[in-house]
Amino acid sequence: MSSNPEAETIQITMANLDQLKFNADGLIPVIAQDYKNNEVLMMAWMNIDSLRDSLTGGKASYWSRSRKTYWVKGETSGHFQHVKEIYYDCDCDVLLMKVEQIGAACHTNQRSCFYRKIE
Amino acid sequence: MSSNPEAETIQITMANLDQLKFNADGLIPVIAQDYKNNEVLMMAWMNIDSLRDSLTGGKASYWSRSRKTYWVKGETSGHFQHVKEIYYDCDCDVLLMKVEQIGAACHTNQRSCFYRKIE
Repeated sequence: MSSNPEAETIQITMANLDQLKFNADGLIPVIAQDYKNNEVLMMAWMNIDSLRDSLTGGKASYWSRSRKTYWVKGETSGHFQHVKEIYYDCDCDVLLMKVEQIGAACHTNQRSCFYRKIE
Repeated sequence: MSSNPEAETIQITMANLDQLKFNADGLIPVIAQDYKNNEVLMMAWMNIDSLRDSLTGGKASYWSRSRKTYWVKGETSGHFQHVKEIYYDCDCDVLLMKVEQIGAACHTNQRSCFYRKIE
């Protein structure tokens, strides 16, 4: 881990989301976690617009790197994620989003994308 | 999320770790989670060597992007992560590692790197 005193103490609000460290593609990784039992559901990427919409609209939206498009999770499946809280890490370059997951988080219809273990 | 039938069904073992999707820098993101209470502790990156060592040696090791070096978590702080299980996601491009965290996961001495919420 890096040691960046500024990142460790800055307070992120709706007014300074641009102080988060988006990567060269303008994206930040987001871990989606069940707000009730702490199950990790998936990891995906947001740009600043999908982050702002997730914070204000109540439903999680992301940036699809494969389709290169803005993406409201659940818009086709109905498996929306209702956003409860969003945390950011010490380096301001990863988000942890607590959600109420409707149905399956994974497009394979598993509750979590992490349904297989390295044996 | 992408839909990749091959990734969804492949079984990853010690013998085919190279079937995971490492990025252009040869790295894969790893979510470290407390194996007892499911608290998300941190996210960091592994190359295939640090993944193999984490699976066989029992202690989590990573690749530091800032220092460009192999890194055994806890080697200076004593805050080791004892690896319990490693899961991989539907697209084979993210890992979820269940660990027993000794002391603080975060270099700020917080238990988790996600100690701040976007207000």
